[in-house]
Amino acid sequence: MTHPTDLTLGRRAMAMIEDLAQHTDEPGRLTRLYLSDAHRRAAQATLGLMREAGLDAHMDALGSVIGRIEGADREAPALLIGSHIDSVVDAGRYDGTLGVVLGIVAVEALRQQGTVPACPIEIVAFGDEENVRFPTNLSTSQALAGRFDPAWLDGRDQGGVSLRDALVRFGGDPDGAAALARDPARYRGYLEVHIEQGPLLEAKDLPVGIVSAINGITRARATVIGEAGHAGTVPMNMRRDALAAVAEMIGIVERAGSTRTDTVATVGVAQVQPGAINVIPARVDFTLDARSPDDAVRLAMVEDIVTECHAAAQRRGVAFTIEPFMESPATPMDKALIGQLEGAARSLGIAPLHLSSGAGHDAVAMANLCPSAMLFVRCKGGISHNPAESITVEDADMAARVLIEAVRRIAA
Amino acid sequence: MTHPTDLTLGRRAMAMIEDLAQHTDEPGRLTRLYLSDAHRRAAQATLGLMREAGLDAHMDALGSVIGRIEGADREAPALLIGSHIDSVVDAGRYDGTLGVVLGIVAVEALRQQGTVPACPIEIVAFGDEENVRFPTNLSTSQALAGRFDPAWLDGRDQGGVSLRDALVRFGGDPDGAAALARDPARYRGYLEVHIEQGPLLEAKDLPVGIVSAINGITRARATVIGEAGHAGTVPMNMRRDALAAVAEMIGIVERAGSTRTDTVATVGVAQVQPGAINVIPARVDFTLDARSPDDAVRLAMVEDIVTECHAAAQRRGVAFTIEPFMESPATPMDKALIGQLEGAARSLGIAPLHLSSGAGHDAVAMANLCPSAMLFVRCKGGISHNPAESITVEDADMAARVLIEAVRRIAA
Repeated sequence: MTHPTDLTLGRRAMAMIEDLAQHTDEPGRLTRLYLSDAHRRAAQATLGLMREAGLDAHMDALGSVIGRIEGADREAPALLIGSHIDSVVDAGRYDGTLGVVLGIVAVEALRQQGTVPACPIEIVAFGDEENVRFPTNLSTSQALAGRFDPAWLDGRDQGGVSLRDALVRFGGDPDGAAALARDPARYRGYLEVHIEQGPLLEAKDLPVGIVSAINGITRARATVIGEAGHAGTVPMNMRRDALAAVAEMIGIVERAGSTRTDTVATVGVAQVQPGAINVIPARVDFTLDARSPDDAVRLAMVEDIVTECHAAAQRRGVAFTIEPFMESPATPMDKALIGQLEGAARSLGIAPLHLSSGAGHDAVAMANLCPSAMLFVRCKGGISHNPAESITVEDADMAARVLIEAVRRIAA
Repeated sequence: MTHPTDLTLGRRAMAMIEDLAQHTDEPGRLTRLYLSDAHRRAAQATLGLMREAGLDAHMDALGSVIGRIEGADREAPALLIGSHIDSVVDAGRYDGTLGVVLGIVAVEALRQQGTVPACPIEIVAFGDEENVRFPTNLSTSQALAGRFDPAWLDGRDQGGVSLRDALVRFGGDPDGAAALARDPARYRGYLEVHIEQGPLLEAKDLPVGIVSAINGITRARATVIGEAGHAGTVPMNMRRDALAAVAEMIGIVERAGSTRTDTVATVGVAQVQPGAINVIPARVDFTLDARSPDDAVRLAMVEDIVTECHAAAQRRGVAFTIEPFMESPATPMDKALIGQLEGAARSLGIAPLHLSSGAGHDAVAMANLCPSAMLFVRCKGGISHNPAESITVEDADMAARVLIEAVRRIAA
């Protein structure tokens, strides 16, 4: 299955990732928040890698690094390829960075092969995908799609620094965000390669997969209020046990997520009060995170969960409230680009597995600008946002080859 | 239903309770831990109340207050009546104290009526029932039953003070504990009146009820370890969600407690790690408290819970461990004394409801010395260990009358 003599592209990608992983705000672990010193150094390094690969590169007003090579037809709508180089706190090295370096590797390879693409190609390294530092939402890619919200400039990090001030310090231009908006007519599509952050490809023994849609998300906070009581003296049939009620509700959530196709539903938080071994729980606060590639399916799922939880609460004589605080619609990927990725994968002998993305990506923002699609790369154990995040050089190589083949087809 | 002109005994009991409630270690709330200053003042006050009622009273080596009146036959085995005057932190005023003052009220009433009981009667105000301050187990009543463990003297409170030193400071005698053991042949029985601490009497609209047994208890700590994961990217069928597993286990515990007679089973604590809205829970630690008046039933219930939880864990691919750390057998109350209480209640027009005690009491220790029985008094909402603890003067009065009638019958 592996072709050791063929791993040039994978090795090149891994070397670039190794290089970029040196730039961290915290010694001993990888943390590269938007507009930090480490982000600036990583952006400079990315600029260098792009220029080495023959791209005409610059840093834009919001700190994104963008490199372009012209195509045979300079006026033809360009193909964008990218991802992000910011990270979470104590991150892995592949989330985001892999997509940027594979774009560079692809252009480098095309040039080395003497291939001139029919249309221009732009590689983008966004800076604000994790949205950890400021209260933004994919601000750097939304800017290209003409959806940068100027109110974001007033958002502050935990140290009280505004995005505006951080941008100035970084060398960016807060007032230049609006001008970054691209003309949709000038772009034929956006491709993003990213680690899967889930276990499906590993389970299916496949190096890459094709994203059908980025899931929509509903998030809610819920509370059950029952009645505290002595665990020894209140008979079972006279209890209003908040935790027993929430246990039933967690079962409802789990079944709601499991009985539909491609949906997930999770209770990640449950806080019990008063929380003593001999006291019947009086109150439990819990969270709901429900996702689906299909908004109608997600909304119906959440409605079913709410209805069933209310019924359980009524039967048990406890009070139940649930308050959704986030509703993010699904982003279907472009069918034509999916077809090109599929053809590219097949041409390399890979069965084209379609999977939805449970996590958000810059492609959500870029889909507002132009047709967008994503290629997922198998990662070990499905682990991400963690130093244990890992991919193989073989998979990086295969992802590069699928990307190059897809670019050939799209830019033909 | 109420007989305002008949409430003399209830009013007297409530006045004594009001009086004793003044003795607290914390201004603004009632806290009276064993051997504290407030305990000493309350013990002195109890001594005064006993002497006023005509009892020959003293404080014993462990701080219990004991008063005696002789019967027509001074050598006849005596009847003990008592409860405790220590409290939990931020307590109600009735838990324990009610049983002590009703004993005094009963003796006072018998004397006022010119009734000389056939046998001696001793009223006891124990000091260490709540076992809040020191790592003891009903030490003051166990001493009378000859089961005081000398190792308890080395136990320390949170401030590092040993029980031995606290006893000396209180005016007690650490080395006198063994000599407190009574000769079982000299005692015909022990009666304890106590608030129910549960909602059954209120639900049945009864002022008092007769305890059939004090439940045995199993307590255990359990842990489920699954696998953390991204709430968006790990498909439902590939999850090992520790919280979803524990939710199923809480249902198992609830059903185990509900499908048997007189059993209760409670999960009071559940701590979720990492506890983030978008992370599948990796680990949950929870507790089990299971009680029954019948030890065989309790042990079978716990075994069923453990077996079913293991099966659920295996099905879900999570690790499950459970470690019992407390096994306290049930204490059946004496059938003859139950019969006397029943007769007394019936003679006052009260249907004799039998109920088991979910909480522990000094009667557990005293049952090691002599036949023991308990009368429960209705308390508002079943609430105890709380300033909201409350009983009516009518119910206190009726409890006094049932107790006096029972004493007449037992001491006949």
